[in-house]
Amino acid sequence: MHRYRSHSCAALKKSDVGQTARLSGWVHRVRDHGGVLFIDLRDHYGMTQVVADPDSPAFSNAEKVRGEWVIRVDGKVRARTEETVNPNMATGEIELYAEEIEVLSAAKELPLPVFGEPEYPEDLRLKYRFLDLRRETLHANIVKRTKIIAEMRKQMAEAGFTEYSTPILTASSPEGARDFLVPSRIHQGKFYALPQAPQQYKQLLMASGFDRYFQIAPCFRDEDPRADRLPGEFYQLDLEMSFVEQNDILETMEPVLRDVFKAFADGKPVTEEFPRIPYDVAMRKYGSDKPDLRNPIEMEAVTEHFDGSGFKVFAGMIAKDPKVEVWAIPAKTGGSRAFCDRMNSWAQSQGQPGLGYIFWRKEGEEVTGAGPLAKNIGPERTDAIRAQLGLEDGDACFFVAGRPDQFVRFAGEARTRVGDELGLTDKDRYALCWIVDFPFYEWNEDEKRIDFAHNPFSMPQGGMEALKAADGDEGLLALKAFQYDMVCNGFEIASGGIRNHSPETMVAAFGHAGLGADVVEERFGGLYRAFQYGVPPHGGMAAGIDRIVMLLVGAKNLREVTLFPMNQQAQDLLMSAPAEASPAQLRELGLRILPQKKD
Amino acid sequence: MHRYRSHSCAALKKSDVGQTARLSGWVHRVRDHGGVLFIDLRDHYGMTQVVADPDSPAFSNAEKVRGEWVIRVDGKVRARTEETVNPNMATGEIELYAEEIEVLSAAKELPLPVFGEPEYPEDLRLKYRFLDLRRETLHANIVKRTKIIAEMRKQMAEAGFTEYSTPILTASSPEGARDFLVPSRIHQGKFYALPQAPQQYKQLLMASGFDRYFQIAPCFRDEDPRADRLPGEFYQLDLEMSFVEQNDILETMEPVLRDVFKAFADGKPVTEEFPRIPYDVAMRKYGSDKPDLRNPIEMEAVTEHFDGSGFKVFAGMIAKDPKVEVWAIPAKTGGSRAFCDRMNSWAQSQGQPGLGYIFWRKEGEEVTGAGPLAKNIGPERTDAIRAQLGLEDGDACFFVAGRPDQFVRFAGEARTRVGDELGLTDKDRYALCWIVDFPFYEWNEDEKRIDFAHNPFSMPQGGMEALKAADGDEGLLALKAFQYDMVCNGFEIASGGIRNHSPETMVAAFGHAGLGADVVEERFGGLYRAFQYGVPPHGGMAAGIDRIVMLLVGAKNLREVTLFPMNQQAQDLLMSAPAEASPAQLRELGLRILPQKKD
Repeated sequence: MHRYRSHSCAALKKSDVGQTARLSGWVHRVRDHGGVLFIDLRDHYGMTQVVADPDSPAFSNAEKVRGEWVIRVDGKVRARTEETVNPNMATGEIELYAEEIEVLSAAKELPLPVFGEPEYPEDLRLKYRFLDLRRETLHANIVKRTKIIAEMRKQMAEAGFTEYSTPILTASSPEGARDFLVPSRIHQGKFYALPQAPQQYKQLLMASGFDRYFQIAPCFRDEDPRADRLPGEFYQLDLEMSFVEQNDILETMEPVLRDVFKAFADGKPVTEEFPRIPYDVAMRKYGSDKPDLRNPIEMEAVTEHFDGSGFKVFAGMIAKDPKVEVWAIPAKTGGSRAFCDRMNSWAQSQGQPGLGYIFWRKEGEEVTGAGPLAKNIGPERTDAIRAQLGLEDGDACFFVAGRPDQFVRFAGEARTRVGDELGLTDKDRYALCWIVDFPFYEWNEDEKRIDFAHNPFSMPQGGMEALKAADGDEGLLALKAFQYDMVCNGFEIASGGIRNHSPETMVAAFGHAGLGADVVEERFGGLYRAFQYGVPPHGGMAAGIDRIVMLLVGAKNLREVTLFPMNQQAQDLLMSAPAEASPAQLRELGLRILPQKKD
Repeated sequence: MHRYRSHSCAALKKSDVGQTARLSGWVHRVRDHGGVLFIDLRDHYGMTQVVADPDSPAFSNAEKVRGEWVIRVDGKVRARTEETVNPNMATGEIELYAEEIEVLSAAKELPLPVFGEPEYPEDLRLKYRFLDLRRETLHANIVKRTKIIAEMRKQMAEAGFTEYSTPILTASSPEGARDFLVPSRIHQGKFYALPQAPQQYKQLLMASGFDRYFQIAPCFRDEDPRADRLPGEFYQLDLEMSFVEQNDILETMEPVLRDVFKAFADGKPVTEEFPRIPYDVAMRKYGSDKPDLRNPIEMEAVTEHFDGSGFKVFAGMIAKDPKVEVWAIPAKTGGSRAFCDRMNSWAQSQGQPGLGYIFWRKEGEEVTGAGPLAKNIGPERTDAIRAQLGLEDGDACFFVAGRPDQFVRFAGEARTRVGDELGLTDKDRYALCWIVDFPFYEWNEDEKRIDFAHNPFSMPQGGMEALKAADGDEGLLALKAFQYDMVCNGFEIASGGIRNHSPETMVAAFGHAGLGADVVEERFGGLYRAFQYGVPPHGGMAAGIDRIVMLLVGAKNLREVTLFPMNQQAQDLLMSAPAEASPAQLRELGLRILPQKKD
């Protein structure tokens, strides 16, 4: 028999009754039922109930073991009595009657229990991550994460992609976030950088004649801690294709990610065909370029109904500024004064002056609008609004007014809140969509100039001609990019674009952002050089693995889906990193540490 | 029709003749045959011959294009005439008659040709790596590399392993080589380190209750450039298993790696059952713990035949020192004075006093030994040597004498040379074996003390009892470790061990090497702590992916199997790394660069 086990702790079944078996694992817990000891023995695969009574030669060892000791148990497989069968357990029909117990590894008193999973302080959980990871929920999350990634690899291979690893010690990248630097010992005073993303390398791969690249890619950004981002490293499903247009990427990746979601959705519905929503439409309908489509509310402009109306606040704004609009947030089933007032208070808590509303109720045969706003604009306009939005008795509607670019964010939040509060948002599904036609440029208010809206790698729609034809800032700001996001339940889970592969167009695009050809060359040297020597049209995207896993396991915290995360202070408490370097190491690197500033 | 292609450049077949097709790709070369232009159009998948004659509307564009321009071609698929069919090409039965050619991307004059693959200076190839990678050989190597890694993943999954990613920003590790450090911005004056290997994390994974971990793991060592090692990063197939003994790892991994070799051996034989050779035996038979078993020569000790013999040099050494031995390197078919003298000269060129030999030839009915050494020891001893080694007419034998630990390396080199020179080594196969039973400790001559022979993570055979029972330095040096290598054709391709999972045994093992429990805690904090809280017996190994790929593609240089390597000065010439950091970056990291020392 094998030194440690004949079966895993998930393997023994009714058909094994009467057999001798050997198991090894962790003591999950020990129960004493009137002198008979029950040990739940746990390994990676599952759990088996071990029994020892005073007649067993293993009894004295069974009395000794404590939670999280690692033991080997030899015994006989017995059927459980009918009333003790546990149908929720793979091994719930049997138990192992212990004849011999060997302690393979004892455990000191636990700083953190594994059984029961009570709440414990984060830093303690991270310091004793090896105990934390034994807890059922976290263990299952991590296993699911590995399966999701394996499924991504499988789907990508089936879609004709090949996995290439790109360098991790590379050059500082110009993508926006802060790089982690790695001092060079051989070239003192110089630094490598860890990649924020393999963006340039994947484009270089296309220029090198490869096609359909993907990678489960580690990415590194030295950003200040944020609740929704772990310090240090994260993973993305990164991909690039040659000789493609935007539609090719969307059509290739939609089934891949849909099938990944389907495989791990635990039966929850997943969008079959992802709507492709232009950025402008998303902003107007949902107040966000990351709309949660589980929420059925679609906003609409109702400016005309307030123009010249008796509601002087809105009417005055409209009269003064042609860019002012009034948007309606229809709220099906929200037609009570109490709810409307609650929303109004919430808006005030968000720093807004308030949230105007109308709610409708049946008076006799007629559905009439109520609330101060309805009174001000009168029944005709109130009814026109109801007709436009298809609202009925018992429904409400909220209104925001101003320049859309100034209120859109708040309008989106109000839409979310209405959907949540009224239970309109169906939480038990995965609603996926594409957002397309992002603006190519945006206005940099701080520096009073045109800037890239997303990344300078994307191709403007219409290419060089469109860049040339664009009339002034207004024209440039109207330009769209071949740039797209994939959104699930209100989270951006992937982002990509068709790349600008033409050196001339690149220089022209940078020019409008006030950057010269020298900047292109300096920041994107390798790529810009490659584009001079025959480069295919190409594009791709990158999906955030951590976010997708969080959505699929229903975790709220990145640390619940990450194996060995750092804490919010960017410390690895398990391995004690970062740590001081020795004087010899610093000497070798030619570095001196500056005296700390006192805050 | 798709904007860029209806088919890849490898897809068109005889059955497509008469169809219209659209291809995109790189102009591999253009030939002008009496006014008719032939363009070899290349993409990731293959090559197609495009034809344009003066009647074609595409002719003027066809005249314009040059090597490495990227073009789109629309045309009619035509059958080639019988004499122009190219059976070596997937598309060799057809050609595409160009009706329209669109230039998608022109190319400047090439600093490095793609067609023909002439030799070019390394640094130029690295700077223009995107051109270099288009060359047929390198492109095929990289594609094969990706397939080998995909096959590893597949085999590991089938063997029940799960892939987990371990952190890349971690703590400085005590494994021997130099770490790359990453300065922390948030904790100024402190540093992360890039992992030399995920050794501690994979052991922590086992302590965390996972089982059968693997990872295609990036590893980082800041070592001085060496011909057989790229600066910076490399990849290993890293794995670990719980509740196992040495035999489990060997039996699990032997089929995995054998099948990977078989899948990519291009029909060359691969060892079916890997011999398990104890370290001591390997050293005595092959003069190496990385024996090339394609070489059939096995060395043997023949000390007794020289003891008290007329060959005074050897006899005197033996008489003076009981540790002196004489080893024979039998050389089948090497029985000519010319060959023996050549070996002797080679030995002298290696700094040896020479290489004694005997060779045998038939004189009448009798096979007699010849050469000065045979004369000195006389026919009886000469014949006894021949009998022991099974040598015959036309064979030779070389001898090295001294203390084995001092000559073993040279003896191994002589064995290799004899095998190569005589053509005894069958180059066209993959000979794999395990080396087992490595010594646990070794003598550190510099510091005159016992040291770990390999790594301090391994379990000594016999565990705590053996450590306690070992008698003095002699006894400790005789201890073996549960430590093993996998060797292929003279290269170590994998290494592993059963780990020391007992804190007490760990402290005892360190103690013999003169290191206290405090050192264990300091160097292996996370791991040592985990071992206090219930840890399963575990072990694993790591296989060098770059080396395996080199063996399987037959490359001599790591840069031939690596996508974007650095040069020997640890520079990325394509991306210009390492580079200077900005003063702002240095300030944020709290670092100052020391003035350069003049050499």
